[in-house]
Formats: sequence, C-alpha cells, structure tokens
Amino acid sequence: MLILLTNDDGITAPGILAMYRELKKLGEVIVVAPETVQSGTGHGITLLMPLLTSQVTIENGFTGTAVDGRPADCVKLAINQLLPTRPDLVVSGLNAGANVGINVLYSGTVAAALEAAFLGLPAIATSLHLKDNVPTDFAKAAKISRETIEEILTHGLTPGQIVSVNIPALLPNQSPAGTRIVRQCTRPFIDTYERRQDPHGRVYFWNNSVFALGETDADTDVAALRDNFVTITPLQFDLTDHNQTRDWAPKKSI
Amino acid sequence: MLILLTNDDGITAPGILAMYRELKKLGEVIVVAPETVQSGTGHGITLLMPLLTSQVTIENGFTGTAVDGRPADCVKLAINQLLPTRPDLVVSGLNAGANVGINVLYSGTVAAALEAAFLGLPAIATSLHLKDNVPTDFAKAAKISRETIEEILTHGLTPGQIVSVNIPALLPNQSPAGTRIVRQCTRPFIDTYERRQDPHGRVYFWNNSVFALGETDADTDVAALRDNFVTITPLQFDLTDHNQTRDWAPKKSI
Repeated sequence: MLILLTNDDGITAPGILAMYRELKKLGEVIVVAPETVQSGTGHGITLLMPLLTSQVTIENGFTGTAVDGRPADCVKLAINQLLPTRPDLVVSGLNAGANVGINVLYSGTVAAALEAAFLGLPAIATSLHLKDNVPTDFAKAAKISRETIEEILTHGLTPGQIVSVNIPALLPNQSPAGTRIVRQCTRPFIDTYERRQDPHGRVYFWNNSVFALGETDADTDVAALRDNFVTITPLQFDLTDHNQTRDWAPKKSI
Repeated sequence: MLILLTNDDGITAPGILAMYRELKKLGEVIVVAPETVQSGTGHGITLLMPLLTSQVTIENGFTGTAVDGRPADCVKLAINQLLPTRPDLVVSGLNAGANVGINVLYSGTVAAALEAAFLGLPAIATSLHLKDNVPTDFAKAAKISRETIEEILTHGLTPGQIVSVNIPALLPNQSPAGTRIVRQCTRPFIDTYERRQDPHGRVYFWNNSVFALGETDADTDVAALRDNFVTITPLQFDLTDHNQTRDWAPKKSI
C-alpha cells in the first residue's frame, strides 16, 4: 500500500512524524507537506504564485518534500507531479488540535483530505484534541489514529470517500472511552475580538476566542470528543443543499 | 434593510463597487472587505495575527472598512464588532470569475457567505463568469445579480440559508438565457503544473491549469452557466456525509 501523508502544521511538526512512524506499519509512506504552519488556512490554494519545493530530512524519521503552499496545494502537486503512481490512501495529520464543529471548515488538515477525495482517492484526516493540564502525547495519539485507520480500511473506504478522525485528550494511562460515528456539530461559534491601536494609531482587532468542547447535541463530534471517544465523521465535498434544491426545483427559476 | 457587503477580490475591486451601487436600491449597505486580493483563499481565517483595519473611500462609491485578512475574517469582524446591529442580509461579490464546480470549495467569495450563514444570517454569494472575447461588464452583471437577489428574497431566504449566484459572460446587448436552480458539479478537476528551476537551482512548480466550463451532467451549475443561464445553487456548511453516517450508524463503531 502506498500512502501519501500530509498535514497543515508543516513538515517539521511532531504530529506528522508520529503519524509517519505508525503508517510505516501499513505500507510505503511518502510525505509531501507544507514548509510552514498552515493552520486555519481552510481550502486555500495557490494558482498565481509559484510553489517552491525542497527536500527535508527529519532526524530518525523521513525525507519528504516541503512545499511553500497550502495543504490542498501539497495534495494536488503530489498526486499530479511528485508521486510515481497514484497512492492507495491519503492521510492528513496528525493535527495538533481538534477538527470538530465549525473548525472542519477552517481546517487545512481536513481540506487536504477533501482535495484528495475530489481527485478520486480515499482520504482520512486525523486530529488530536489538545487540553490544558493534559500532556500532549503525539506517539500515543498516532497509534490510536493508525488503529482507527486500520478499522476503517477493513470496513472499506472507497475512492472519493473522506473520513475525519479525532483523538481525545487522554491522561497518561487513560484509554479512549470507545469509538463513535458522529456528525459534524453545526452550532454557531461566536468569535470575540479585542480592539487595540498600533503605535501609529491604526485600529486593529485580535481574535481572543477560546474554542471549547461545550454545549451541543448528543450525536455530534463535539459531544463524543468531549466524552473522550475517538470520533469518526464521514465528510463530503458537495456543498449543495440538496433539500433546498429539491424544494425549489419545481419552480425551475424562482 | 441593512446589508453587509464583502468580497474576496479586495475593497478596491470594480465588482464590489458595481454591487454596492445596485444594493443601495434595496437598503443601507455597509462595506467590510479585504484590503488585498484574497482569491482562492477558501475558508481561511486569522486567529494568531492581528487584523489591521482602515477606512477606505472609493470615488463616486462608498466609504468602507478594509481588513487585512481573509473574506471570512471580514464577516466575523463585521458582525461581532463593526456593525451597529446584525445585518438583514450578507452579500459577497460581485466576484470576478465564476464559482461553480470545485471552485465553490476554493472560493473566498463563497466562504464569506458560508461564514455569515454559520453566524445565523441569510447570505448570498454572487460571481461573474469571465470569458475571453467577451468584454467584462460589472455594472450589467451587478444589475442582474441584484434582480436575482430580489427574486430570492421575495421567495424567502431564512437565517442560515446560503445561495450562490453565478452570472454568465454576456456579449453587449445579450441577455441571460434564463435562471436555473442547479447543484454544484462535483467532477474532479485535474490540475496541471509546469516544473521549473529558480536562479538558485531550486525546483518550483507553477499551476498552468485553465478552468473551463466543460463536460458535465445536465443538472449542474457548470452546465447551466455554460449555456448562459443565471445559476442559483443553495449551499450548506454541514460537511457530514449523512448517507455514509447512516450506513455506518448501526455499527456505532466500525
């Protein structure tokens, strides 16, 4: 099995190294990842500027290709140019931070998986929830991610299918409460900003929101992750609101 | 009616000015838009850096707020900080370039509308298809956009609903073939890249794809726009693949 591994935290992030080590147990792994941190860049792509590439060697890890672009650029470039053949699976992660609720839209990690699926490949995004007072253990989370990916593959992931996996923040010696297949929470998240002035008198705003796994419906990714379950959320890249389209369709034009 | 107007081509783009002039016929219009071009930035947001703002006056047009961030940042900041009250409608556009097919995912124009809907507001993205040999007429396209928006509002657009409108490339004196309610085309678009070397010998790739309204199914946005219809596509921000979730649900974990 040939696996393309990417992320949005950048090629030198500890999460991608931990994920590489686990995925090596499943097959050949080629890393093509952003040169710099691309958190919160969503499904941005680079069309008008060149994409510089370089070979990067991570000690006791891998040699991969760094791309000075977005996560979705890495997937496009890898599949269309860099890889010798089409991969059997694309994995994006392990992300430092949960990608549940509205963050699914902002996430470069998820966007990379969506892009791979759009190009007709099976794709899995995986992210680790970070919590104050819980030490971050990428190796443990990557192991759980790999086990979850193996379960998903056993069940069957067809080309174009996307799954987003989130790993709970676990204390040392703590195990996940289980695995849950859950939908994306769509409750609005209200951002707050601090208003300031720069030394030249210009007004700027700084986002000071803290995303927490708060109130939500019981069947969502937010609820399951909050309750320490590994979450599995099948995603899709068709943004059409088909219910609304059907409602309006008899009118053809409105 | 209070309308928030934003875009992804930047506050000085001709499309947003044309749209402003038309929307003024419907109510009060407040412009909060990116300071610079943000095409293809998808649903990126700015969390770790400050958002500088400035007042910008466009001659024979408007005075609005420029934000050195992404389109989704503009919507967040406008609704949470800058506007005196919540707007009745958020309009994003008029974009220079169609947002159909896979471009729906990459588009900052659409992301701004998705963000507004996530915050519980009715939202409309509007984009103009550009075609070689057809002169770009933003004023005409903005007029058609405003008429289409009026039709949509007459029909009723509830808070949280999103509609993406695309205006065909029309020759002078040519009118649209009609209006069609259509789904997003989800056919893969295969990018191509040119491989080059910089003066220092570093390898870079430059995207040389040309997005054209080509082969597709008859009921899609791509087909309708190609045939010179104004397209209306209801969108949603829930990326869950509910069919897959239902298939897997009896297993609870897989």
